[in-house]
Amino acid sequence: MSRTLQTDGRGQLRTVDQTLLPFEWREIVLADAHACREAIVSMRVRGAPLIGAVGAFGLALALRNDSSDAGLACAQAWLASARPTAVNLAWALERLRRRVAGVPPAERAQAAWEEAERLCDEDARCNHQIGEHGARLLRQAARVEPTPQQPLQVLTHCNAGRLATIDHGTALAPIYQLHAAGVAVHVWVDETRPRNQGASLTAWELAQAGVPHTVIADNAGGLLMMRAEVDVVITGCDRVAANGDVANKVGTYLKALAAADNGVPFYVACPVSTIDPDTADGASIEIEIRGAREITHARGRLADGRVAEVALMDERVKAINPGFDITPARIVTGLITEHGVVAANGQAIAAVLAQALRLSAAGAGNPS
Amino acid sequence: MSRTLQTDGRGQLRTVDQTLLPFEWREIVLADAHACREAIVSMRVRGAPLIGAVGAFGLALALRNDSSDAGLACAQAWLASARPTAVNLAWALERLRRRVAGVPPAERAQAAWEEAERLCDEDARCNHQIGEHGARLLRQAARVEPTPQQPLQVLTHCNAGRLATIDHGTALAPIYQLHAAGVAVHVWVDETRPRNQGASLTAWELAQAGVPHTVIADNAGGLLMMRAEVDVVITGCDRVAANGDVANKVGTYLKALAAADNGVPFYVACPVSTIDPDTADGASIEIEIRGAREITHARGRLADGRVAEVALMDERVKAINPGFDITPARIVTGLITEHGVVAANGQAIAAVLAQALRLSAAGAGNPS
Repeated sequence: MSRTLQTDGRGQLRTVDQTLLPFEWREIVLADAHACREAIVSMRVRGAPLIGAVGAFGLALALRNDSSDAGLACAQAWLASARPTAVNLAWALERLRRRVAGVPPAERAQAAWEEAERLCDEDARCNHQIGEHGARLLRQAARVEPTPQQPLQVLTHCNAGRLATIDHGTALAPIYQLHAAGVAVHVWVDETRPRNQGASLTAWELAQAGVPHTVIADNAGGLLMMRAEVDVVITGCDRVAANGDVANKVGTYLKALAAADNGVPFYVACPVSTIDPDTADGASIEIEIRGAREITHARGRLADGRVAEVALMDERVKAINPGFDITPARIVTGLITEHGVVAANGQAIAAVLAQALRLSAAGAGNPS
Repeated sequence: MSRTLQTDGRGQLRTVDQTLLPFEWREIVLADAHACREAIVSMRVRGAPLIGAVGAFGLALALRNDSSDAGLACAQAWLASARPTAVNLAWALERLRRRVAGVPPAERAQAAWEEAERLCDEDARCNHQIGEHGARLLRQAARVEPTPQQPLQVLTHCNAGRLATIDHGTALAPIYQLHAAGVAVHVWVDETRPRNQGASLTAWELAQAGVPHTVIADNAGGLLMMRAEVDVVITGCDRVAANGDVANKVGTYLKALAAADNGVPFYVACPVSTIDPDTADGASIEIEIRGAREITHARGRLADGRVAEVALMDERVKAINPGFDITPARIVTGLITEHGVVAANGQAIAAVLAQALRLSAAGAGNPS
């Protein structure tokens, strides 16, 4: 499969409109900064690493129109405001700002574009390494030697796969590597209300890759864990605080609680760029409140094949829709980063951040 | 509001088809045992107490056709097999069998009908008393004096309201009593995937009664509890085991875990008839596996007003759909019965069952 985000010779971005999956695969072109921001807001692109990358290219595109210091500051703030919870967006924009701030304005757009491309390459490499570290951990969690009849049972929430990143995915990267290595693996896919990223995106991705999977209601994971039908849980994440608290798609916390209650390991896959040392703990993370319509309405395919939106409840119903929740560090078994597994506590996180900084300063530029 | 289940002079049952709510209020007549069983299987009637009552009338109707010992045994087994998890159905049928087994066959149908009517009257009285006991407990859980600006915040899962019972509801009975007494109360309504009983039934009921409420994705309750926006959780239940483990709508366990993790009381409202002393613990309770289509498809209203079913995911997706889960007794704050609050442990449960038996033997017939 090709990368989720591709650049072409004319300096444009191409990706797939994820709001139309799984019913339609439609490529879209993001030709300017406005299109990039709109794609993030509308969730045509989503997933912490991917919105970081699209935001970065958006900044490069904005600099084509106005590469002044004021234009740079304005575009950075405007793009960062598209979605608040995932740190990757703010992180990617700040990385580009630092890269181009000392460059003459006339060269900024090109320098930013090249930095965005580097960021994408690094994302793909990091995720590949997360896959290697994670595959080892997941394999160790198997209660029996995996066979097609008794595969390794992995549960995941939301979509932290290829579609959420440039390539490989974060939480799904280890699963893809195990599958490629011939280890029998089966994935319980939380449908992930209200936007159904599990049912619409993760199930779609896994089907493309030929990985056996079953969709379940978000409500069902606790019972499956209690019945020893889950060996390990792995999710992506939108921001890790300095103390190891994890912000991820709403509902993640409930699965982590069930995992802890049943002795099931709960791993969070995250490139180091998702760790935010400036956020002390989970309580400090802004939780995005999305529109109530995501709860009250659903999009699906009618019997005649047309795709339509239906109201699931009475139109007078009031609903609220927080997009994320916080999983306390104490119930996170480990963070799987490109540098290996890291305990979810302040000391271990500070150490891996220092390690990443040393590697970066040494000119490695990336951990490979 | 009138009772959810009504009998008429011609020995027929009337109720509402709950699969059509909230979009349409359509009364249906259950004229024979087959119609009663079909209504339970298709969930036109649902809720542990209500299916017990409909099953009881179904047995009375079956006895009109065949009141022999064999006919009685056959109808009992056939009706009991309609749904396996809620004990109320088996309990009601066994109660009727005991009532009529010693009666001459020619009188059995009438005796059974009268017993079913008594059972309904008792259900309504029990729920009223659950409401009184529960209102006191819920009121005590308020962190601040409830005002319309800062109401008592109650979270509930699925529907354990009027629609799930003959009248009053179980989990919602205390809420109705508080509201009627002028206590400001607001209900967080879990939408309750996959069948959306919260969004379709609980929200509908609460709106009818004028109780403020907000629908949330099932995934959101953990965050709300972490942010101290929930004072107390209350649910109904389908079966309480002898040790206090609770079977209820799938997802209940996850909310109980979040309540325990955040110091929020977690109450289960249940008439004593929902306690099954013959079930040792939660692991012994059969969990009904329902059709995958409840996960993969949803029913809703199109923009033009028509109600239609849409596929939410690719048609090749495999899904499984357990209808219930088990909440371990250790994280249940208390069982709210018609005899007051009972600790979720074997000793307290044995005591309340003995008390109920004494009252029954004393000829009270019901606890009022």
